[in-house]
Amino acid sequence: MAPDLTRTTVGIVGAGPAGLMLSHLLARAGIESVVVDNRTRAQIEGTSRAGILEADSVRLLTDTGVSDRVLREGRRHAGIELRFEGAGHRIDFQELVGESVWLYPQTDVFTDLADARERDGADVRFGIAGTRVVDLTTERPGILFDDADGRPHEVRCDILVGADGAHGVCRSAVPEASRTHHFRAYPFAWFGVLVEAPPSAPELVYTHSRRGFALISQRTETVQRMYFQCDPDEDPADWSDDRIWSELQARVDGPDGFSLKEGPVTDRSVLRFRSLVCEPMRYGSMLLAGDAAHTVPPTGAKGLNLALADVRVLAEAVESAVRGRDRGALDTYGPRALRRVWRAQHFSYWMTSMLHRLPDATEFDVRRQLGELAAVVDSAAGSTYLAEAYTGWPG
Amino acid sequence: MAPDLTRTTVGIVGAGPAGLMLSHLLARAGIESVVVDNRTRAQIEGTSRAGILEADSVRLLTDTGVSDRVLREGRRHAGIELRFEGAGHRIDFQELVGESVWLYPQTDVFTDLADARERDGADVRFGIAGTRVVDLTTERPGILFDDADGRPHEVRCDILVGADGAHGVCRSAVPEASRTHHFRAYPFAWFGVLVEAPPSAPELVYTHSRRGFALISQRTETVQRMYFQCDPDEDPADWSDDRIWSELQARVDGPDGFSLKEGPVTDRSVLRFRSLVCEPMRYGSMLLAGDAAHTVPPTGAKGLNLALADVRVLAEAVESAVRGRDRGALDTYGPRALRRVWRAQHFSYWMTSMLHRLPDATEFDVRRQLGELAAVVDSAAGSTYLAEAYTGWPG
Repeated sequence: MAPDLTRTTVGIVGAGPAGLMLSHLLARAGIESVVVDNRTRAQIEGTSRAGILEADSVRLLTDTGVSDRVLREGRRHAGIELRFEGAGHRIDFQELVGESVWLYPQTDVFTDLADARERDGADVRFGIAGTRVVDLTTERPGILFDDADGRPHEVRCDILVGADGAHGVCRSAVPEASRTHHFRAYPFAWFGVLVEAPPSAPELVYTHSRRGFALISQRTETVQRMYFQCDPDEDPADWSDDRIWSELQARVDGPDGFSLKEGPVTDRSVLRFRSLVCEPMRYGSMLLAGDAAHTVPPTGAKGLNLALADVRVLAEAVESAVRGRDRGALDTYGPRALRRVWRAQHFSYWMTSMLHRLPDATEFDVRRQLGELAAVVDSAAGSTYLAEAYTGWPG
Repeated sequence: MAPDLTRTTVGIVGAGPAGLMLSHLLARAGIESVVVDNRTRAQIEGTSRAGILEADSVRLLTDTGVSDRVLREGRRHAGIELRFEGAGHRIDFQELVGESVWLYPQTDVFTDLADARERDGADVRFGIAGTRVVDLTTERPGILFDDADGRPHEVRCDILVGADGAHGVCRSAVPEASRTHHFRAYPFAWFGVLVEAPPSAPELVYTHSRRGFALISQRTETVQRMYFQCDPDEDPADWSDDRIWSELQARVDGPDGFSLKEGPVTDRSVLRFRSLVCEPMRYGSMLLAGDAAHTVPPTGAKGLNLALADVRVLAEAVESAVRGRDRGALDTYGPRALRRVWRAQHFSYWMTSMLHRLPDATEFDVRRQLGELAAVVDSAAGSTYLAEAYTGWPG
């Protein structure tokens, strides 16, 4: 059976926030695109993903007309708390850099984008199968796939974008000799739980303790998200509700009497930690964006924001290339995006190494961490440097 | 032969900058002290030691009447340069925090203090031998030693201060069960050279390179001090002048054409790197100060400044204890001094880990370092955070 052929300007693999936002930005610039994803919309919306949006990420959603729901249903956080030696120290973003971040799940960002794309009549194909990308080093690359009914399809485009995440087909389609992976594994993981309880704090609490890191986050008035550093081989099944609460309480415990409001644990999982950057971010007519190009550890909440920052830069490069009929303009994307990527890698590494307990940590290491934390919270410059990174660098 | 007995209020072991400055500050408060050192004054002055003085260290010398020679003969540095990827980025201390540091060798600080103590008729005994400290847990501790003629001496005091450096007798006199050593070794060292050449740069240049760290420092118009990261087991004898210059030039090399002015290498040595904090800083009637209590790696130039900051706090504690006849006041010293010590340990570690190449560094680690360096120099907050630490925290 001959595949059903679609011609478009930009073919995008991956209908997560990066792929959909790119499609949205291109449409605003009058550039046609087709987006495909092997997951159904229901599958993506059924995957609970946390999210802290930088100020520029929020503006990207609101100012380009995706949705202003984040302003109505998201929670504005004007700071975070750094907690160590049993005492809390607020980093006041609003006061330090005049910005806030927004607690707004990635799942909701996806829904807003999927709704906007549907509203604008975009060509987004969910629930496809057998996706392959071909002819990447030509000026007419293609995406081959089968639709839900098993019918073969082919999308031919001028520019192909891989926004299909860390395990997608696009990055793997680049020959190994044409890409370098800069990788770092961390000797620990996060044990993440969803709990039915009221919020224990109004903003995120990043906790340094001798038992290891803990993060107290929020979701709604009745559901909270919390994490604690654990061994990468930890089995969630070994952790009863009681054991989880006892570990979390022990990590935030302190003379100030702060404690967590407990409730049933409805979800528990172990999140691996890794840092990865794939360079270059272009291979022939294909460009990689978001998790397809890089992964950051979750400390500092940069993953989703970095994906959105990628496509902001990518949309500009694509627009220049298409309007100017100059594929060379695509070369501006990688170097510009990578500047932010490496800063974010450093920031995530910094937050991680300042707050986590390394398996071979000595008392020297712990005291040095506490010396650093004291220096950061006591110094307006140190706190501002952290706030700038957390709320997002300009550009 | 019965020892010649001297009674005093504060007995100080070690006539380096810490011991002499303490004696000077106590004299200003009307408190008597005796200082002993097993080195002769000529020996100490014959040991070439570099020095970058924080603004408060300079003020301590000038405002307490030691000497204002630092203002006349020292060199005010209003910033440093961070050099990476072959380009220099100035951190302007004066603009960022309104302070400068002073290039003024530790040897000159010693001379100024020794002169001041002599001028004020202080009891400072150089060139003694066989120093021991005794009865530390009593209210009448003692220092036993032989003078240059072999005659035995005994100094009995109310408070004994160990300012005799990392290898002195005082720290070792504390039973092991009564002290904790927080230690960290680093897997590299500095190769330090003195060269006869004009200055290559007006201020210190801290250089990140793929070959490892280098520091371009100054001494006089005709003599310069430079360092490059090396293996701890490097043998200085293996390094000809040509090989040294070639390595230094390769580390600072870059598209901006910066290069070093060469000349004969007159001194070469390998400096080991270590971090150490001994806690508590008090044992009975003995208090430890400066290198006797802690060692920092040289990156960031905190060693001498930390010693002077210790004795500034120690002089206050001793004065309270003596005036109020309350030995409990001595307990304020350690915790106050340690706050700064751990910040300085962190700062030295930070500067070290941001700029040095670890033996097992991957390309990820190098890129992350470059991401951090870019973030620091591009952010006024990041640069200010570094400048605050380099020029010295208040208090």
